[in-house]
Amino acid sequence: MNIQHIQFKENQLVLLDQRKLPLAVEYITCTTPEEVAEAIRTLAVRGAPAIGIAAAYGMALGALLGRDPREVAALLGSTRPTAVNLFWAIERMLSVIETSAGAEAAVREAARIHQEDIAMNERIGAFGASLLEDGTAVLTHCNAGALATGGHGTALGVIRTAVRSGKHLTVFIDETRPLLQGARLTAWELQTENIPCYLITDSMAGYFMKQGQIEAVIVGADRIAANGDTANKIGTYSLAVLAKEHGIPFYVAAPSNSFDLSLGSGDHIVIEERNGAEVREIAGVATAPPQVPAKNPAFDVTPASYITAIISEMGVIRPPYEENIKLTLSGAKERMRHA
Amino acid sequence: MNIQHIQFKENQLVLLDQRKLPLAVEYITCTTPEEVAEAIRTLAVRGAPAIGIAAAYGMALGALLGRDPREVAALLGSTRPTAVNLFWAIERMLSVIETSAGAEAAVREAARIHQEDIAMNERIGAFGASLLEDGTAVLTHCNAGALATGGHGTALGVIRTAVRSGKHLTVFIDETRPLLQGARLTAWELQTENIPCYLITDSMAGYFMKQGQIEAVIVGADRIAANGDTANKIGTYSLAVLAKEHGIPFYVAAPSNSFDLSLGSGDHIVIEERNGAEVREIAGVATAPPQVPAKNPAFDVTPASYITAIISEMGVIRPPYEENIKLTLSGAKERMRHA
Repeated sequence: MNIQHIQFKENQLVLLDQRKLPLAVEYITCTTPEEVAEAIRTLAVRGAPAIGIAAAYGMALGALLGRDPREVAALLGSTRPTAVNLFWAIERMLSVIETSAGAEAAVREAARIHQEDIAMNERIGAFGASLLEDGTAVLTHCNAGALATGGHGTALGVIRTAVRSGKHLTVFIDETRPLLQGARLTAWELQTENIPCYLITDSMAGYFMKQGQIEAVIVGADRIAANGDTANKIGTYSLAVLAKEHGIPFYVAAPSNSFDLSLGSGDHIVIEERNGAEVREIAGVATAPPQVPAKNPAFDVTPASYITAIISEMGVIRPPYEENIKLTLSGAKERMRHA
Repeated sequence: MNIQHIQFKENQLVLLDQRKLPLAVEYITCTTPEEVAEAIRTLAVRGAPAIGIAAAYGMALGALLGRDPREVAALLGSTRPTAVNLFWAIERMLSVIETSAGAEAAVREAARIHQEDIAMNERIGAFGASLLEDGTAVLTHCNAGALATGGHGTALGVIRTAVRSGKHLTVFIDETRPLLQGARLTAWELQTENIPCYLITDSMAGYFMKQGQIEAVIVGADRIAANGDTANKIGTYSLAVLAKEHGIPFYVAAPSNSFDLSLGSGDHIVIEERNGAEVREIAGVATAPPQVPAKNPAFDVTPASYITAIISEMGVIRPPYEENIKLTLSGAKERMRHA
């Protein structure tokens, strides 16, 4: 990916407008926290890690404008409820801004969050690639790629690293209704790098698993509870059930800041409910009677029991998750302290 | 449903163009078997029983035009491979045309197939309604409604009959990508009759089952093998797996002419593969990079082991299917002989 989808330059945050992809490559420029909040809320930037990075730059813009950091934090935190990276990034920025005199320190911290995310994805990729054998056909859902992160990607980062190491993978892409992040973003990323792929509708995954044409599933995460329960794009849970039924491994790839150890289980994760109009139309075209009621939860929670392994930048975490998540993440903290 | 979507009058077949629904109510007129074949191939008319009825009228048009019935049968039989009703109707018309002198007899036979289908749906509705308790929330996929049949519907026929008998049902409608028969047709039918419903994307079914908000699944069928394996719209199999995982009953509603006792199992059912462009676009609007390869199987096969019961016009068939399908359908023939 040579496309820089999140750039901070001359005190402006420039975001690739992901709503327009793949038909148009357009950028939007944010100079205020309000503009960043709007970009997050309207999905111009999306994907849990990318939201966190954008919010960090939003906090930096607030600092540059001399705004009350608590108010800016509240504004940015109100945009989307499910991805924990958002709150993680805001908290981290808040502690820097409130303990430092200069806005420049805030800008540097946001850039550090951004660069760390890319580095974490590279490590996730290296750990995860070892799980995918040469010749595997792998299904992914939504977009957990470069566009969803600082760069490289989580689930797609694993696929990228595996392919760069010489493995031949075929990727099935769930189109991911209602907002089609798979069709629009993942297909675009994989096409750009000539990674063999097939676009399918979300309803086809079971069929291809039964045919033996899908051999592994790998997805990202918006929030992982202490017991391993994982919130991710709506449809993920159905894939996990199907993978279990077909004896196919189901992997989650996510950096440590996607974990929320304050939650004992996924039951406590808030699921964003979006406007039903997104279900009644596609790309602005009505596909249903305008008055029909629609439900539109943006995420679901996959219980840990369906997850074969969680791939973090600190290593591959396997069941029992309650124990191994704590061990792996505290190990992470240990090592970072010594770095 | 007061809309007459299949009408034969003044030696013309008038079809409601289902590709245009729900945004426009337009009709197309067929005066030749070729026009009927084109309407079936391009999904102006769709749904296994409706395809059979349209093909029957296509055979009648051929007879009126003095065409070779075998050639007309081959033409109509080449349109779509999965729905067995198509071949059943063509065979039945062929035996009438080849043993009778007049084209009028062919027209009468097609009208009889049409009327019989409506009567079968009413009986399916009556048998199936007894399976749905008052207050049940039921999920349906694709459109197995009045539009997919001669009238009333199979899966939606069960829902209609239950509602008319005073039961309060809530219907979750899978939008059914790629061609959105759920969003376009089922939502339209239910809205027309004020039956409470929610439109969801195909990826949401598992989420709502896990929440306890979906308590039963009911679908139609394009072909049912002798052992109960059922071909239906792509995505049906995934729903069956999800229903099993959540302990939710999974019902198939179909008339006896949807059974193909010549096939020992669903492994022998030919699955229609349609153009990948249908997956890359929605209502003519591109939703993916134009060059990305897409797969587009139009149907899948649900193994009988996932099916709680099959509701036919001869009664509710339960496992063991191999035995009970034969018993029920031969009972059907007995009774028809005595009628």
